Amino acid sequence: MRGAPLAVTLGDPAGIGPEIIAAAWRASRPGDPPFVVFGDHDALAGAGAPVVRVGSPAGAAGVFAQAIPLVDMPLPAPVQPGAPDTQAGPAIASWIATATEACLSGKASALVTAPISKAVLKASGFRHPGHTEFIGDLTAHAEWEGERGPVMMLAAGDLRVTLATVHLPLSQAPGALTVEGITRTARVTAQALVRDFGIPRPRLAMAALNPHAGESGEMGREEITILRPAAEALQAEGIDIAGPLPADSLFAPEIRQSYDAVVCMYHDQALIPVKMLDFWGGVNLTLGLPVVRTSPDHGVAFDIAGKGLARPDSFIAALAAAAGIAGRRTP
Amino acid sequence: MRGAPLAVTLGDPAGIGPEIIAAAWRASRPGDPPFVVFGDHDALAGAGAPVVRVGSPAGAAGVFAQAIPLVDMPLPAPVQPGAPDTQAGPAIASWIATATEACLSGKASALVTAPISKAVLKASGFRHPGHTEFIGDLTAHAEWEGERGPVMMLAAGDLRVTLATVHLPLSQAPGALTVEGITRTARVTAQALVRDFGIPRPRLAMAALNPHAGESGEMGREEITILRPAAEALQAEGIDIAGPLPADSLFAPEIRQSYDAVVCMYHDQALIPVKMLDFWGGVNLTLGLPVVRTSPDHGVAFDIAGKGLARPDSFIAALAAAAGIAGRRTP
Repeated sequence: MRGAPLAVTLGDPAGIGPEIIAAAWRASRPGDPPFVVFGDHDALAGAGAPVVRVGSPAGAAGVFAQAIPLVDMPLPAPVQPGAPDTQAGPAIASWIATATEACLSGKASALVTAPISKAVLKASGFRHPGHTEFIGDLTAHAEWEGERGPVMMLAAGDLRVTLATVHLPLSQAPGALTVEGITRTARVTAQALVRDFGIPRPRLAMAALNPHAGESGEMGREEITILRPAAEALQAEGIDIAGPLPADSLFAPEIRQSYDAVVCMYHDQALIPVKMLDFWGGVNLTLGLPVVRTSPDHGVAFDIAGKGLARPDSFIAALAAAAGIAGRRTP
Repeated sequence: MRGAPLAVTLGDPAGIGPEIIAAAWRASRPGDPPFVVFGDHDALAGAGAPVVRVGSPAGAAGVFAQAIPLVDMPLPAPVQPGAPDTQAGPAIASWIATATEACLSGKASALVTAPISKAVLKASGFRHPGHTEFIGDLTAHAEWEGERGPVMMLAAGDLRVTLATVHLPLSQAPGALTVEGITRTARVTAQALVRDFGIPRPRLAMAALNPHAGESGEMGREEITILRPAAEALQAEGIDIAGPLPADSLFAPEIRQSYDAVVCMYHDQALIPVKMLDFWGGVNLTLGLPVVRTSPDHGVAFDIAGKGLARPDSFIAALAAAAGIAGRRTP
């Protein structure tokens, strides 16, 4: 719903979530889209910004100039920065679920998640690899037109990348690639570039898996058996995708200007360029779901939590990206 | 020998070698180290710069201001740009062998190789994967103090990377990593930073293989079973090496300032950052051999050869790098 605030989840209260949320609120200016936090009052207030409880997201806009609006969903016990507590797991998950529901019902415009710790959530029975898959499940019942995600995109500077495989050992990534998986990733990417980024005729590139794109099969055959068939199938559907192209050239400034997004085959192929272009301000976006979701591209950083060292750049960029996409989806 | 010219090999005469050599000669200024080319007269002269035959490298310095000095080793038949001919294979290999011998005997100071085509050389019975291994074999009989290469380094901007595995399908790279191979690569790297780059106490970083450096074994175990033991062995020898560190963070500007070189685990992990930092001017260096050898980091580019489109940036950078190292090795 236009005018509805962004829904922010507090993330792990022992991580840097509370302080980057507080820093982002302090950095906000009149006219910036307001946000409402789903989380524990004391954990957020401990980060040093004023916090006001609201009954629902609708109350956020009226208080945002004076304080951070919070839908208070208390932890069972206090959690200190730097001291993760597995007892907090169910509450952390419930903040994500409630904020997602607020987006589905139109009470919030988009979801921006502060980092969680897989280890903490796993210990309390959480069975999803991360936010992306959890939110995929939470929104599975909601209608969605077109190819469905979740697909992970990272954006930094002039670069957007999406991932055909994500959190796998490198030795397992080649075997996990399929024509179906790559075409689904590329379709969700192309569709998101149109709907969410306002690019009417997006140009995609597919990164090769092997050195020199396999050099005609001399250095790996996946380009011949999987990637090229996937590219041809996509082209036949009318998707403008080049490749598979040698991954080492693809991210050079001279080349990446030619594409709106690159479909990558494994984690570091996508993340090395992103972190080189913007180590602090990269944004993680979940594409292909009925709920718009973004997050910073860093983790909980328990080691520096509460010390005033965390930089909010990526979280602020995630807020801006979520607001931009939500505005385009609800014109 | 100080004062001896650089030895340049013409590379594949159907590729961009002749024209980038001619362009580098035209761009040279008084005081630049002279070079002498080993190759075919007509193929080099076809690139439009004046060429003068010399009997040996010793004649190069006297003519370099007026023309490109050439040790003429004729092709069996003329070769046109863009039209590779497998009959040229033995001549191309002999230019490399003769130029390497000139370096070993002190008649030339260092070797700079223009690109060759593996397909062309393979067809004429050449059994080496590339220059690096061929020159390794050609110099195997010569004395060398310390850990022996060849190890491939790439340098661009403020970044130097070396490779523990090079031209393998990605699916084979994890299985090709060994403690012995990684420690050898790192030792050759550290020793070259001291001898060849004049860095008395080099700081190395080791890039992890898996996403998030494996996250304590959750996403791959090579960090635990191979990379960390290699790092510990190197540290025990007194080599300053950090890691294995997550590869996505390691190449960000803020992080790469902390190291003089990064030991990488596979081709694109090393090449993506290099090409992002300097798409045109990256240099390939062969470390750990009795002969100093550099080359541009691009290939033969048959598709644009002879069209005046090839940029000599990388070749010029390779000449400068070779001269710098040769000067440091022979004070």
